[in-house]
Amino acid sequence: MNTSEKSLSRLLKGSLKRVDKEISINIKDEEKLITLTAGHLIKAKGKKIRPLLTLLIARILNYKGSADVTLAVCIEFIHNATLLHDDVIDAGKIRRGKMSANEIWGNKVSVLVGDYLLSRAFKLMVKNKSLKLLEILSQTSLILARGQIQDVGNNQNVNLSEKKYLSIINAKTAELFRISCYLPTIITNQDRKTQKIFNDFGFNFGMAFQLSDDILDYFGNSKKMGKNIGKDFFEGKVTYPIIHCFRQSDKKSKRIIAKLFLKKRRNKKDLNLILSLMKKTNTYERSAEFVRKFAKKAKTNINKFEGSKYKVYLVELVDHLIIREK
Amino acid sequence: MNTSEKSLSRLLKGSLKRVDKEISINIKDEEKLITLTAGHLIKAKGKKIRPLLTLLIARILNYKGSADVTLAVCIEFIHNATLLHDDVIDAGKIRRGKMSANEIWGNKVSVLVGDYLLSRAFKLMVKNKSLKLLEILSQTSLILARGQIQDVGNNQNVNLSEKKYLSIINAKTAELFRISCYLPTIITNQDRKTQKIFNDFGFNFGMAFQLSDDILDYFGNSKKMGKNIGKDFFEGKVTYPIIHCFRQSDKKSKRIIAKLFLKKRRNKKDLNLILSLMKKTNTYERSAEFVRKFAKKAKTNINKFEGSKYKVYLVELVDHLIIREK
Repeated sequence: MNTSEKSLSRLLKGSLKRVDKEISINIKDEEKLITLTAGHLIKAKGKKIRPLLTLLIARILNYKGSADVTLAVCIEFIHNATLLHDDVIDAGKIRRGKMSANEIWGNKVSVLVGDYLLSRAFKLMVKNKSLKLLEILSQTSLILARGQIQDVGNNQNVNLSEKKYLSIINAKTAELFRISCYLPTIITNQDRKTQKIFNDFGFNFGMAFQLSDDILDYFGNSKKMGKNIGKDFFEGKVTYPIIHCFRQSDKKSKRIIAKLFLKKRRNKKDLNLILSLMKKTNTYERSAEFVRKFAKKAKTNINKFEGSKYKVYLVELVDHLIIREK
Repeated sequence: MNTSEKSLSRLLKGSLKRVDKEISINIKDEEKLITLTAGHLIKAKGKKIRPLLTLLIARILNYKGSADVTLAVCIEFIHNATLLHDDVIDAGKIRRGKMSANEIWGNKVSVLVGDYLLSRAFKLMVKNKSLKLLEILSQTSLILARGQIQDVGNNQNVNLSEKKYLSIINAKTAELFRISCYLPTIITNQDRKTQKIFNDFGFNFGMAFQLSDDILDYFGNSKKMGKNIGKDFFEGKVTYPIIHCFRQSDKKSKRIIAKLFLKKRRNKKDLNLILSLMKKTNTYERSAEFVRKFAKKAKTNINKFEGSKYKVYLVELVDHLIIREK
């Protein structure tokens, strides 16, 4: 942790503690397998970026109640439910540097504990008695599922357009970032302008975050990230680097890429081939530029908000969590 | 359909049509894969017994609004989400790396469309603006997940106690039957006594229904049921017939049963062996008696309700949907 992260942690110490406590209470079930599986994932050292955003923005907006903590827990539960289901789907083997839950307990348990967390999130929100919040959360949960379905539906499709790709990462990632930032404006009854500022900030940050993730899958450091390089590629997932590389390639290279993605399985050698084609087409540089574009938008959004010395933390979070340079 | 079923269909014709229409509207998504998959399951499979119960009891209680239809759709969506997730193939059963593309596709779509339906159910209920109903539905959804997890957790466990088995089928099946019958008493503001009548009826019917299902897996007529005999057995699922047979067997037979369930895979020959042991221990007769016990309780519950000529349909549904004799 750098100095800024430390002071952010200090600022939100009380709220973060309450989030952890609420999480523990809500995954403690009479069925120990649930507590174990859910705990394995949630208590792993994730960045908890979404809850952090909710708590920080609630603080920025001078929120005094306890709904920010409940929301943060709900959002983390929804996120973890999608992770559990994502690991089943992609047969992901490593999550947050540990073995993924499905590797240990099997596909079925992963799916069902995901369902449990999703139900728990709704149950928790019902206690909050706000239909407005429930409406937003259920809509987001729907969009997340749709985004993942579209993601799956475009597997191995090298003709995926940039526009469609952006709409998919919006649904599967930026949407939850968006409401993590937007919901605090609802519980503090902000005016439309302020709502829009944080809403748009969340969206742009989420887009930058997913784009970064997709880029690091080709250009990242596996030790630092806690997952292996090339995961998307091996699975046949078409992300921005592929879209860019394919578009910028000559006919011959295009054919090579298309062929690679038609294969049932791609190996290390295939990955190296793709990486060399990406080098030719400056894929890393152009992709990183694209990330910076969304990051800049997010920062511009937040700069429109006047007051609160804490808003600088949001800018720092954006800078910290996206790729800046190689 | 027999005469009674026909007149029940006639009675609920309008509501059933509205349920079908609401289902169609709510699975129509911008992503066609969702509409297709959800539609395939919801429109093809099943007797729609849960929605039928909700609509019938709302009718019995002279309900005049439209919340019964929304509830029926929600309940059917939750039920179908669990079916989709239940169908997910366990990683343990497949040799990793030898999954065909089709199998992967099936798993992916099952999980995500299930998530979509669950989210859609909550979104639909939010529109209804009743926190009370949302509370019950989210709690039930939680219990369903827990029940299925316990079910998976006790796979191949021939030492499963009758008590634990009953608590599992309560969670995974009777709970949804219970609220299908209980919720109409909420939207019609019934007194505690009436609430309890339908609540208990739903629970007992649900228990009888799942027990029947588990028994028919060994003693059913595969043509009539549309599924093959021995499915639970081949999967290593321990249900009432096994629990009874194991308990009633001598030491030698106990060892045989335990050994069968420790095997990675059970075959037709194994099934015949188990069936012969079941014959020795009168498993069918004792199991059918157990079903009748719950069915009788359900009918006793409903007989406490005074008035409404339509309540006879509930009794007939119980008789029709559980095993009565071989």
